[in-house]
Amino acid sequence: MKNLETQVGIIGAGPSGLTLALMLEKQGIKSIIIENRSRDYVENRVRAGLLEHNTVEVFDSLGVSERLHKEGLVHHGCYINFNGVSQHIDFEKHTKRQVTIYAQQEVVKDLIQSCEERGIPVLFEADATEIEGVETKKPIIHFTQNGEKKSISCDFVGGCDGFHGIARKTLPKDSYKEYKIEYPFSWLGILAHAAPTYDELIYAYHKEGFALASLRSPVVSRLYLQVDNNDAVENWSDEKIWDQLEKRLGIALNRGDIFEKSITPMRSFMIDNMQFGRLFLAGDSAHIVPPTGAKGLNQAIADINNLAKALISFYQTGNEDNLNNYTQKCLARVWRSLDFSNFMTYLCHKQSEEGTFESRLQKSKFDYLRMSEAYQKTVAENYVGMPFEAFE
Amino acid sequence: MKNLETQVGIIGAGPSGLTLALMLEKQGIKSIIIENRSRDYVENRVRAGLLEHNTVEVFDSLGVSERLHKEGLVHHGCYINFNGVSQHIDFEKHTKRQVTIYAQQEVVKDLIQSCEERGIPVLFEADATEIEGVETKKPIIHFTQNGEKKSISCDFVGGCDGFHGIARKTLPKDSYKEYKIEYPFSWLGILAHAAPTYDELIYAYHKEGFALASLRSPVVSRLYLQVDNNDAVENWSDEKIWDQLEKRLGIALNRGDIFEKSITPMRSFMIDNMQFGRLFLAGDSAHIVPPTGAKGLNQAIADINNLAKALISFYQTGNEDNLNNYTQKCLARVWRSLDFSNFMTYLCHKQSEEGTFESRLQKSKFDYLRMSEAYQKTVAENYVGMPFEAFE
Repeated sequence: MKNLETQVGIIGAGPSGLTLALMLEKQGIKSIIIENRSRDYVENRVRAGLLEHNTVEVFDSLGVSERLHKEGLVHHGCYINFNGVSQHIDFEKHTKRQVTIYAQQEVVKDLIQSCEERGIPVLFEADATEIEGVETKKPIIHFTQNGEKKSISCDFVGGCDGFHGIARKTLPKDSYKEYKIEYPFSWLGILAHAAPTYDELIYAYHKEGFALASLRSPVVSRLYLQVDNNDAVENWSDEKIWDQLEKRLGIALNRGDIFEKSITPMRSFMIDNMQFGRLFLAGDSAHIVPPTGAKGLNQAIADINNLAKALISFYQTGNEDNLNNYTQKCLARVWRSLDFSNFMTYLCHKQSEEGTFESRLQKSKFDYLRMSEAYQKTVAENYVGMPFEAFE
Repeated sequence: MKNLETQVGIIGAGPSGLTLALMLEKQGIKSIIIENRSRDYVENRVRAGLLEHNTVEVFDSLGVSERLHKEGLVHHGCYINFNGVSQHIDFEKHTKRQVTIYAQQEVVKDLIQSCEERGIPVLFEADATEIEGVETKKPIIHFTQNGEKKSISCDFVGGCDGFHGIARKTLPKDSYKEYKIEYPFSWLGILAHAAPTYDELIYAYHKEGFALASLRSPVVSRLYLQVDNNDAVENWSDEKIWDQLEKRLGIALNRGDIFEKSITPMRSFMIDNMQFGRLFLAGDSAHIVPPTGAKGLNQAIADINNLAKALISFYQTGNEDNLNNYTQKCLARVWRSLDFSNFMTYLCHKQSEEGTFESRLQKSKFDYLRMSEAYQKTVAENYVGMPFEAFE
């Protein structure tokens, strides 16, 4: 079967694409997902690990959160440190909401399993090569699988194929404006078989650079260090990493086996148009934020929440208003995600030597965080995620 | 009498110097104030006009606030507009504190009158020329008055002589670091005999530039327009000013007689040391903020509150700790004033064409202000002024 047909053709079996398919299926709308990687690859690639309250609610509504609630770790707050002085941010108190630590690859496993159970086709190692006729009512996704050329004819295309995918490239260049920040630092991230010695995430500004203590499970620590953009993993022995982490975080750590070590540049990227004809972009294909605010995966699910609603209302009533307003609806939240991620990034990273104007203003913001419950609340409500309704 | 003696020699009869003298007198500590301008000049020069809750409390404690409470206008909130959309900031609700509109020259009149009543010498048209021996226990302020050279021998010198005074110039260059922001815009400010049509201040971002609707009394409007740094008053006819104000503020104004019209560049300036030996700086002599946050006069009074306490505890107990910690104590608040003034300035001014990254982030901050009570509260509590105790 080379030429497939469905209602919504979805490119990308990450959290966005899979969630979109499941939300549509619940309303009887058919879709097919194609994914250029293997199932094994997407079910194991290390990505985000912190789910907003909103995101968990979406998964609850899809009935895919049983394991998430069993294995996920609910966090009611986090710490922001500044040169050893610690301020707790109490999510529960300020927002009555919380976040859940649950690795993205586990989310993906749960979503794929649910797609299987509900009969939603997910084609792996299926590489989208062209999206044809997005301005018509029957766009066609061309792809190759096992060396064979295939296609999906559909009513709508969901471009959930990440930053490097073809969805964004299919938008006419003059239909959008790009916004970019390249931060002058990167993150050296590790995964270690080590029980975390901290009960909540710690974001630490330190005069030698930022550090973040996170986790993936009660036995796997996820830790990060700010490094220069031109630094390399080879410069960082395990011992040096642990030493720097303990110094910057100001706590003793369990020094377990490091089984993943990589450097990621920090950047913000977004375009201000997420649709063209019958092609709709969601998640990383349209915007990337630095991981400091833990917004990437969650923003993707917020996009999908809008897209699914718009498609469902179209199929149920023929009303195209929500489809037409899709970009506008998403962007208000995307800009907030970006602004908050940017704020957390600048608050916690070393950008210049201590004593410069910007470092003093940075310190003053942290001092204010210590004295103002209201300021703490702004961090808490952005961090756990403003309710979807806030953007209605 | 050419050579005077006192306990604290004060340079500058602005709000800082006068308040310092009165706070000291209350505890029986003698001072003499010298001021290079005439009494008529300082009692009529147009400056700030918004008193924080803290500032009013200081004046209450000195018994100089009778007229202030009679003639001053208590404001319980303000508006921040963005391209015609208005957000009210409710001081009362968020902080149970308020601000008082009362012109600085009226404050100065009240303070000078109180100094007279209490027998504190205020020498006008007395131009400080040198501060000698600040590292000794008997510094000497040299000044000229009516062409005569005179001096004040004292235990301490209060450098309350503003940005252009000699106090800061007396600090050794290597004892402090300077911090500066020169903003790429200025304010065209007017005073008009016109009853304000608005009941609270309006800070308005508009795509053609910032505007601020303020007032000095029920019959005097104080209004501002963002203009280019190289603009000149001559380019602005009264009609053009009123037209632009109405356009940017989105309201009709009473177009009364404009009796003051001037352009002021926006800048932030501060030094991170406010003392050397027995010389102590306060207010504008050590730091200047853009008027957007209405912090200048209020920060000066906060400095004086620290300085008076330190001097009083020295004279009463001989303890020098508060004197030694004076800079450190003041700076925490100065940095907050600067950060907040900077925030208000960037939130409300046009910095680039609409659609640029920074203008979109600016818009996103305003959108967040509309959706978050906590964010509104951060603006309210900074605006009315954090209690002095917050910085203890």
